[in-house]
Amino acid sequence: MNGMTSIEKPDALIERMGRAARAAATAMARMTSEQKSHALNAAAEGIRDNAPAILAANARDMERSAAAGLSAAMLDRLRLDAARLASTADGVDTVAALRDPVGMIVDESLRPNGIKLQRVRVPLGVVAIIYESRPNVTADAGALCLKSGNAVILRGGSEAVESNRAIHQAMVTALAKAGVPADAMQLVPSTDRAAVGAMLRAQGLIDIVVPRGGKSLVARVQDEARVPVLAHLDGINHIYVDAAADPAKARAIILNAKMRRTGVCGAMETLLIDRAYGDPTALIETLIDGGCEVRGDATVQALDPRVTPAAAEDWDTEYLEAIASVAMVDGLDGALAHIAAHGSHHTDAILTEHRRTADRFLLEVDSAIVMHNASTQFADGGEFGLGAEIGISTGRLHARGPVALEGLTTYKWLVRGTGQTRP
Amino acid sequence: MNGMTSIEKPDALIERMGRAARAAATAMARMTSEQKSHALNAAAEGIRDNAPAILAANARDMERSAAAGLSAAMLDRLRLDAARLASTADGVDTVAALRDPVGMIVDESLRPNGIKLQRVRVPLGVVAIIYESRPNVTADAGALCLKSGNAVILRGGSEAVESNRAIHQAMVTALAKAGVPADAMQLVPSTDRAAVGAMLRAQGLIDIVVPRGGKSLVARVQDEARVPVLAHLDGINHIYVDAAADPAKARAIILNAKMRRTGVCGAMETLLIDRAYGDPTALIETLIDGGCEVRGDATVQALDPRVTPAAAEDWDTEYLEAIASVAMVDGLDGALAHIAAHGSHHTDAILTEHRRTADRFLLEVDSAIVMHNASTQFADGGEFGLGAEIGISTGRLHARGPVALEGLTTYKWLVRGTGQTRP
Repeated sequence: MNGMTSIEKPDALIERMGRAARAAATAMARMTSEQKSHALNAAAEGIRDNAPAILAANARDMERSAAAGLSAAMLDRLRLDAARLASTADGVDTVAALRDPVGMIVDESLRPNGIKLQRVRVPLGVVAIIYESRPNVTADAGALCLKSGNAVILRGGSEAVESNRAIHQAMVTALAKAGVPADAMQLVPSTDRAAVGAMLRAQGLIDIVVPRGGKSLVARVQDEARVPVLAHLDGINHIYVDAAADPAKARAIILNAKMRRTGVCGAMETLLIDRAYGDPTALIETLIDGGCEVRGDATVQALDPRVTPAAAEDWDTEYLEAIASVAMVDGLDGALAHIAAHGSHHTDAILTEHRRTADRFLLEVDSAIVMHNASTQFADGGEFGLGAEIGISTGRLHARGPVALEGLTTYKWLVRGTGQTRP
Repeated sequence: MNGMTSIEKPDALIERMGRAARAAATAMARMTSEQKSHALNAAAEGIRDNAPAILAANARDMERSAAAGLSAAMLDRLRLDAARLASTADGVDTVAALRDPVGMIVDESLRPNGIKLQRVRVPLGVVAIIYESRPNVTADAGALCLKSGNAVILRGGSEAVESNRAIHQAMVTALAKAGVPADAMQLVPSTDRAAVGAMLRAQGLIDIVVPRGGKSLVARVQDEARVPVLAHLDGINHIYVDAAADPAKARAIILNAKMRRTGVCGAMETLLIDRAYGDPTALIETLIDGGCEVRGDATVQALDPRVTPAAAEDWDTEYLEAIASVAMVDGLDGALAHIAAHGSHHTDAILTEHRRTADRFLLEVDSAIVMHNASTQFADGGEFGLGAEIGISTGRLHARGPVALEGLTTYKWLVRGTGQTRP
């Protein structure tokens, strides 16, 4: 296949793959839930059966990438071992067991003229996933797309090329035996950046692109894409501690929201404290004693000598590390104004024991996820009971917040008559 | 305002209007259904109270456009009279009375950790409508956007500039008195085509663009837009008459689907007849005797001497007039293949008395609306019980088919905890 495609220009390659994916999507849309589950269970077995080959491929990726000077963090993302690969295969079984949204009736009605209307969920069509380093995305994202009846075109990073190829090969062989067309799950053979560009322009062939990776990848995709994109660029998430917050809950939640895992998109980045809150110093101490650098405005700096000054850009920064920016605000209105000016529409939380104050925050903050008295680290498809997650969207159209199977579907209108004509 | 804006470049104009709309959208999102209904009732009254001024403005538009040689069909679309204007005002009252989707709970769940989750409908934000000739769109589309809690930026055609300005002025004055910010309903003062270009590039300021008008307008918008578009370009709608169709129903439905109104997007354009259908000649005669030109393949030409030959492009043509292309196909599979090759994913119908054949058609035809034993002319938001329609979408994301208030909303996730942190 490499020999065959190496002379193909990126646009021609993606057009060929897209047309094949479209044809496969038609077949996928007709499969029953049972057929899809069965095929995904087979794909999981395929990963287990081919574990030695996949781990060997990964070892070659690791060696090449280490020699090329890839960072330790990136190498850790790239690395597979027996346990990680087993968990990847189990993840495919988990997706296989999820409730299939295809065929679900969104709503129905009987018109006065006797016509029966139904809105029924159908697959989106062709989904493209563009990702970096983590080879498990090949399996996870691929499984979500297939379970929801779509065809998928996967384009992984060059550092993981052999791992992705091995996982893809193991899955697609098993899928084909179980009746899924091989073109329903394709891996772009080229690691040429131009292939990504061709995917982003493939209107009519690719229905949605999901970038999975760092900010520069997401920014490039959002910037160049003519195809719809499901993504979030930033998670500049705020927690507002209201005057009426419970101090013990507040300390526990802000520490968890910032420090449980600092690299996730649901991590708190900015803490807003009501000027009327009783003990702001305890909040700052909780963070600093927990190992977090605190950057603050003048009032916050006065609370603890360890606070460093926040620069203007701090309020617009997603640190993804053990750093938080902290500002004092004038009550709920001050918090709302700060979030409107600096938020990224991802996840924002209020801590308060006043239900009406919380309700105003939940109504007025324009973010995909708004929380009351809970850690922003709950912003996750699994925690929301979706079973898995293809991504989190801060866009306003189609799907918002954590997106799983339902977000990979659309609907059609079924109209059943008995010979009606329109007067 | 004209003096002020005439020196403003299109991009600066749209950026200023977009920012003002975004601020107004925040206020709109907080209004209750009652406030919005009351304001729209006031806007309808405003149209009625200002009828003389609006009709006078329309007379000037008509005079100028007639002198400029606008076609009779276009002049008819542009023309307002007392009855049409009264019906426009009544339409605003109808929208005011529709059920408001904002605040509706899409779904909710209680997580094992005690966290309560709700997905709740919220307005999309800022909607842009780009339209031609028909000044009633100013009122209709404006009302739908406001009722669903959005701000709207309206950009009408140059031929209707005075009519649109008069309707907008009447409505916005009444709306402002009823507490709706004036910036929630703005009319682009410039009829410069460059203003449309600026709207189509206004990512972050405009959340969705809805083009309302002829194919060249829709094509330009779809081609240039970097902002999401809700639209359909073509309605190349098929009716497939199966061998098991009821002949009387078939004749009545195809005549209605083609000839009731030939200029609507739900009109049938192509008739596909199963080779095994008993009396195809009667179907051709029904159309021709009903005043329809029939263009057919060789087999169809042999059925009636009045049939003219269909050229290759006929199968991909949306006539929007009293012309139909007719082909004989090999059963359901032939029909499915023809529709997959030539359809526009708008509305397609099967006529058959076999439920299982119908079910396969409804499942396998990839169109926004699929019908069994009903006229394609039912493809309409009003007929679907949506109360009104901002447009019909053949896109696969966000909203598909007839779109009314719900399609002008998105959702947010409300997470209510009692102090939970993530383990």
